[in-house]
Amino acid sequence: MNPRPHLVGLVGTGVGPSLSPALHMTEARAQGLDYVYRTIDLDELAISPTRIGEVLSWARALGFDALNITHPCKQLVVEHLDEIDPAAAALGAVNTVVFGDDGRTRGHNTDVTGFAHGFTEGLPGATVDTVVLVGAGGAGTAVADALLRLGCRNLHLVDLDVARAARLSADLAGRHPQARVAASAFDDLPGLLPVSDGVVHATPTGMAAHPGMAFSAELLHPRLWVADIVYRPLNTALLQAARAVGCRTLDGGHMAVHQATDAFALITGITPDAERMSKHFRSLVAE
Amino acid sequence: MNPRPHLVGLVGTGVGPSLSPALHMTEARAQGLDYVYRTIDLDELAISPTRIGEVLSWARALGFDALNITHPCKQLVVEHLDEIDPAAAALGAVNTVVFGDDGRTRGHNTDVTGFAHGFTEGLPGATVDTVVLVGAGGAGTAVADALLRLGCRNLHLVDLDVARAARLSADLAGRHPQARVAASAFDDLPGLLPVSDGVVHATPTGMAAHPGMAFSAELLHPRLWVADIVYRPLNTALLQAARAVGCRTLDGGHMAVHQATDAFALITGITPDAERMSKHFRSLVAE
Repeated sequence: MNPRPHLVGLVGTGVGPSLSPALHMTEARAQGLDYVYRTIDLDELAISPTRIGEVLSWARALGFDALNITHPCKQLVVEHLDEIDPAAAALGAVNTVVFGDDGRTRGHNTDVTGFAHGFTEGLPGATVDTVVLVGAGGAGTAVADALLRLGCRNLHLVDLDVARAARLSADLAGRHPQARVAASAFDDLPGLLPVSDGVVHATPTGMAAHPGMAFSAELLHPRLWVADIVYRPLNTALLQAARAVGCRTLDGGHMAVHQATDAFALITGITPDAERMSKHFRSLVAE
Repeated sequence: MNPRPHLVGLVGTGVGPSLSPALHMTEARAQGLDYVYRTIDLDELAISPTRIGEVLSWARALGFDALNITHPCKQLVVEHLDEIDPAAAALGAVNTVVFGDDGRTRGHNTDVTGFAHGFTEGLPGATVDTVVLVGAGGAGTAVADALLRLGCRNLHLVDLDVARAARLSADLAGRHPQARVAASAFDDLPGLLPVSDGVVHATPTGMAAHPGMAFSAELLHPRLWVADIVYRPLNTALLQAARAVGCRTLDGGHMAVHQATDAFALITGITPDAERMSKHFRSLVAE
């Protein structure tokens, strides 16, 4: 007999088109592991996201080793776990749940670690002293935490929903007292970007379904690095504009791949080949 | 991407030591299929067998393709299915549930087909006109149905629980009007075996935990074929005694393997290599 095969699921809504099954299973095969990764779409199943605790219990009972958790369950799942790693606990959001052999259920957040790993990989040496983050939703929240863990000292949060940016700002400031975190409006960008080291875009604008840019390309300048978390497409209008200006850029593939590599490592205990997973990811996105 | 991997479970109590995971997964690997097979032990999970309907619903929601069902759920599961094949429906017992792409849940009984296939394989040409079946429990019930489908015209059911044998006898007689089915006591064996073509043993006696024989070796005679459904060990005291007398014999491995080959075919749509699965099974049992 080979080692016990791995069984993993992705729980959330709209998870059908997720690339995670292909990414995880192909890397597992290359590692010589048997690995089944299923998508579990709560909308299609007519299961309310508030029943995530039941989903967890049954997945565990039926032999799953781990679940990736996505919208809208990342916060809802927290109260159903036995243990949460510090980064995920601080954020109050979990995207990876591992069912331990000891019977305990552990939560992690590889969106945070994934952005950090992707940033270090794709923008080595980039200064993160002063950063503007556009988008204070779920993804933005993970990115903000990652930026502060990477050493950002001045973080400006910009969101159309100014109250949401203010809430996140207050939350982050409380958890990262060494940094200055402030909420700003889109109108403040002309003042902020010229004095910033970089900008991260974390709104849906630029995705295939939401083409365009969240802010004007005229605000970009060559001393700014520009990171986008959108990865479908990888080459967003924002990144095209940034490259035209001469900015260093980081596309959304880095975070997407590393949230998967980090989850894979937590689930299997095996460090995957990040470069191989990245190549595979980029070939899938290019299709 | 490879084809979608298969995800299958075995639901019941005491399923931990089952050989089914190894049998299914090893054959699947040889067929080039990704296939995860999990045991789901209701005792260990403290899930009442009466909740089998919930187990089915969740297994399906979480992406299982099929479940094997064993004691004590084979009857309980029936009312939760959309369709049941005629053999399983007649028996009122299902050991294989397939979740169709069309959303429908279909029940089958490969204990019945497995015994029949194993019998044809291991005792080719054996006469089944008059047969004694010792043991009228769950396994005996499946074997009885298989024997009648193989053409048995006189079936004698023997069980310590005479009432149970009488109930099964009445049930079988109703469904197989072409045959004579009668319940008998162990005391009747000295009269029955001399005029029978064969005897099938379907009680737990002879298993490692219940050594010995269900009836006296002195009742065996060389014109009788002797089939045992016990397969741990394969070489039971009964079969040893039968061979010593000169009987043709069929060990329990045939039924065990073919319930698995038939389930594998239903689940995957691919006919497995029965000889390869049999060799594997026998190597596992010999360990």
